[in-house]
Amino acid sequence: MKLLEDRIREDGRVLGEDVLKVDNFLNHQVDPKLMAQLGEEFARLFRDEKIDKVLTVESSGIAPAVFTALDLDVPMVFARKKQSLTLSAENYTADVFSFTKQETNHIIVDKRFINEGERVLLIDDFLANGQAVQGMMEIVDAAGAELVGVGIVIEKTFQKGRQLLDEAGLHVESLARISAFNDGQVEFAD
Amino acid sequence: MKLLEDRIREDGRVLGEDVLKVDNFLNHQVDPKLMAQLGEEFARLFRDEKIDKVLTVESSGIAPAVFTALDLDVPMVFARKKQSLTLSAENYTADVFSFTKQETNHIIVDKRFINEGERVLLIDDFLANGQAVQGMMEIVDAAGAELVGVGIVIEKTFQKGRQLLDEAGLHVESLARISAFNDGQVEFAD
Repeated sequence: MKLLEDRIREDGRVLGEDVLKVDNFLNHQVDPKLMAQLGEEFARLFRDEKIDKVLTVESSGIAPAVFTALDLDVPMVFARKKQSLTLSAENYTADVFSFTKQETNHIIVDKRFINEGERVLLIDDFLANGQAVQGMMEIVDAAGAELVGVGIVIEKTFQKGRQLLDEAGLHVESLARISAFNDGQVEFAD
Repeated sequence: MKLLEDRIREDGRVLGEDVLKVDNFLNHQVDPKLMAQLGEEFARLFRDEKIDKVLTVESSGIAPAVFTALDLDVPMVFARKKQSLTLSAENYTADVFSFTKQETNHIIVDKRFINEGERVLLIDDFLANGQAVQGMMEIVDAAGAELVGVGIVIEKTFQKGRQLLDEAGLHVESLARISAFNDGQVEFAD
């Protein structure tokens, strides 16, 4: 999506070897018009999948996910992240290991909000090693729902997340695909 | 806002004396069409305040805040909540005491995202004791910005938050004002 690539080139900040900060338009300060455009694009890309529900994880996924859900005319559910976990029969849970923070968090979804047979679209802000998406996949599986698509705002193609999703045979759409950081410059995959 | 009151009557669940769960359309599962309507209403109510930025706290404030910001054509910033706090010269921080959880959390905003002189509108999902709003007010003050409005999705008029904000002379708009829970039924203030 050229609009998003241009915005990343203009406003993204590359830190170190492989960190891209987009906190001035995506995950701390948020550009609502851009979010509406991302939502529209995800809705267009996944419309044929007959989505029943959009699922994301708090907090950075919420803005693009809510616009996607609006355009697809379905509810959005955001999983809660917790550092400690009180197991409950009312929730689905999964462990998510963060490579950046080197710690395990848990994601939680109330069982009332994902139902057997529902066709679920996952939306997330970043795809790197794919841990958060894998956690959400476990939750969708546990609910007996069907994961029919994964929409990613920014993918880092040089980390292993995309390969994992492709191997699982999933329909994945990333709106910007970063292939390398070169001297602080972002390079996009074709 | 009648639409919201009707939805609370229909889908809200009253637990115990003073807890209202709206996790099936506001703060876990989210109805995107309703969020768009809340945002439109907030934008209408605060349009004359010439807002430069919408501020909220993760995670439940994000959906209504992003639609408000879209309609006002300004950026939205969501403060991060942390249990532990590493002080940094790059951030504004404030302590927020949770009466429900009986614990203090911290909210954090990068200094780049609130600027001196900006006219800030706070949006939050609930107003009860007003602790989260007070924390955000401290951050707006520290930045030398001006708090010109507070938009609340659901206010509990019988807790002390609204009084605090009125005493501070703020322009407060709550889209639903709950005056009491009566045998598990929600009563709205006029």
